[in-house]
Amino acid sequence: MAIRITGTGSYIPSIVEKNEDFYNHQFLNADGTSIDSPNEIIVEKFEAITGIQERRYVNEKQLNSDIAFIAATKAIEDAGIEKESIDYIIVAHNYGDIKYNTEQSDTVPSIASRVKHLLQIKNPKCVGYDLLFGCPGWIEGVIQANAFITAGIAKRCLVIGSETLSRVIDKHDRDSMIYSDGAGAVIIEKNDEKGGILAHETATYALDEAHFIFFGETNNPEITDQRRYIKMYGRKIYEFALSNVPMALKSCLEKSGKSITDVKKILIHQANEKMDEAIVNRFYKLYQMKTPQGIMPMSINRLGNSSVATVPTLLDIILKGQLENQEINKGDIIMFASVGAGMNINAIVYQY
Amino acid sequence: MAIRITGTGSYIPSIVEKNEDFYNHQFLNADGTSIDSPNEIIVEKFEAITGIQERRYVNEKQLNSDIAFIAATKAIEDAGIEKESIDYIIVAHNYGDIKYNTEQSDTVPSIASRVKHLLQIKNPKCVGYDLLFGCPGWIEGVIQANAFITAGIAKRCLVIGSETLSRVIDKHDRDSMIYSDGAGAVIIEKNDEKGGILAHETATYALDEAHFIFFGETNNPEITDQRRYIKMYGRKIYEFALSNVPMALKSCLEKSGKSITDVKKILIHQANEKMDEAIVNRFYKLYQMKTPQGIMPMSINRLGNSSVATVPTLLDIILKGQLENQEINKGDIIMFASVGAGMNINAIVYQY
Repeated sequence: MAIRITGTGSYIPSIVEKNEDFYNHQFLNADGTSIDSPNEIIVEKFEAITGIQERRYVNEKQLNSDIAFIAATKAIEDAGIEKESIDYIIVAHNYGDIKYNTEQSDTVPSIASRVKHLLQIKNPKCVGYDLLFGCPGWIEGVIQANAFITAGIAKRCLVIGSETLSRVIDKHDRDSMIYSDGAGAVIIEKNDEKGGILAHETATYALDEAHFIFFGETNNPEITDQRRYIKMYGRKIYEFALSNVPMALKSCLEKSGKSITDVKKILIHQANEKMDEAIVNRFYKLYQMKTPQGIMPMSINRLGNSSVATVPTLLDIILKGQLENQEINKGDIIMFASVGAGMNINAIVYQY
Repeated sequence: MAIRITGTGSYIPSIVEKNEDFYNHQFLNADGTSIDSPNEIIVEKFEAITGIQERRYVNEKQLNSDIAFIAATKAIEDAGIEKESIDYIIVAHNYGDIKYNTEQSDTVPSIASRVKHLLQIKNPKCVGYDLLFGCPGWIEGVIQANAFITAGIAKRCLVIGSETLSRVIDKHDRDSMIYSDGAGAVIIEKNDEKGGILAHETATYALDEAHFIFFGETNNPEITDQRRYIKMYGRKIYEFALSNVPMALKSCLEKSGKSITDVKKILIHQANEKMDEAIVNRFYKLYQMKTPQGIMPMSINRLGNSSVATVPTLLDIILKGQLENQEINKGDIIMFASVGAGMNINAIVYQY
């Protein structure tokens, strides 16, 4: 018996926002002071650190629940299952549905209910709920689905990570260039094969770290409304992630009984290329190893950081052969890992 | 072995908003037309249907996470446990933290992370997440905690239902009188006693029902901003609840192996007194019985409808001897039940 991913799907929004598109933004420091560099230099530095060249935005008519629905439809089709057989719809997100040019998050009904409605699933025993857990929300949704299947209250779950960060960015903040929109989904179920979810690990650090990612005012002191935007203390997050994520990965791998040399791929939350590389390098260093070439597939260059959506989207595009020089084959041991608002960290060791 | 509630706590906000306090409101129909009755008559009719005489609001400085924290502190103290031993903090809510006189929901970090921060819990293995499931969110959190304990990934969970609906009400809508603020919390854990959670049942109806409770504009056509508020189609909800909740209760009771005559109390979401009575009457009618006197403790008269908080608050005030003529004794079979946005329905059969 194994609890396995039997289908994947993702939606990559069609609007491409390139780094050059930020040249005309007025970037300011958090204290409202101006930055002593032309935008071309700011953008160049940004790209060197984050690896991001472009990101994706939903169009004016799309909501978070709309793109969650598209990814879900693809995952259901890919799994070849009957939609009425789904026991749980778990949607990880952070900001709900925010209409274009408005500022309120709409979370009632839940995004899961909206997706179930759009999927036109009739079965009332298919339970839909939303999970708020920062960027690690989709991995946590998989861990919760695994628990429900283990506990015997579900056989088949749809787990979606979907986010429209373009609706909560402060255009006067350099960090606004990080954020992207997207949705990824998987079907998870119990079947008679081997492998699947071998181990998982989750941690919440909230003593000093709870507000490293937060909702804050614009950097532009001339704007005096109360509107708030996604904000973060990048340096603190970097140090926190470097200190804690490698050990969480090691702990998860040990639980699985597999060896570091068994690991074929690490699908890590696409937060920031340099940070992701540093995390994985330090993880291998715990085993006195150098990071193997190609172990860490990256999509951030073209897709940016779409929060909960990065990991399921990355998985989907690799499995569909859409990421150059990357593949996952039957039997491969892979790891999922994420770190984000909370601050939350999680990881899964999974055998394909 | 049993999975049991070992501690409860609640927070009832100190601002009492009486029905008379609505006499000076300008109530309008959903289409913006005026209502052909003086406010005294509107309020009298409202009270006759909902049973609500007064409701509670948080003060200007309090946030949803603040009151969730107070309820959590009391539940931890009541259970007599070490806070560092908690494996999960599950917070059910719907609108996050909304500051007084602002309109944006703040959900990053999660309310669970904020509560963990306020509780000053150090243990990173204590995982905090938020659950969005409409008014039935707290009961669903208990069901999820039960699943985690059954699956072996947790031993002890803190499950909170907390809401500040006063921050999302349209004062031109008569339904605004329904909504209240509050927080309730429980500790749930595995122990060697008998009883505890005997059965549970959950359903999501989203085909036609997804948007029965929604985020909509003010009833006042003169206000042309884009701000949205909690809104509902009361008649549709009433009919839906009457058609579906009694059967869900029956199904849950059958799973538990207990008889209808074993049931000592039904703690139902305090949505609307007449609706709650009609649901419970119809439930007993399925067994050709009349509803036993006092089986359905009510707090709505004084506390209004605080969404996810009503059921844990009701449980807490009964156990603490604060609800007249109501008590729960060791060995009693009780039922928890809720219906709300999604549309979601759930129930638990629990032996004290």
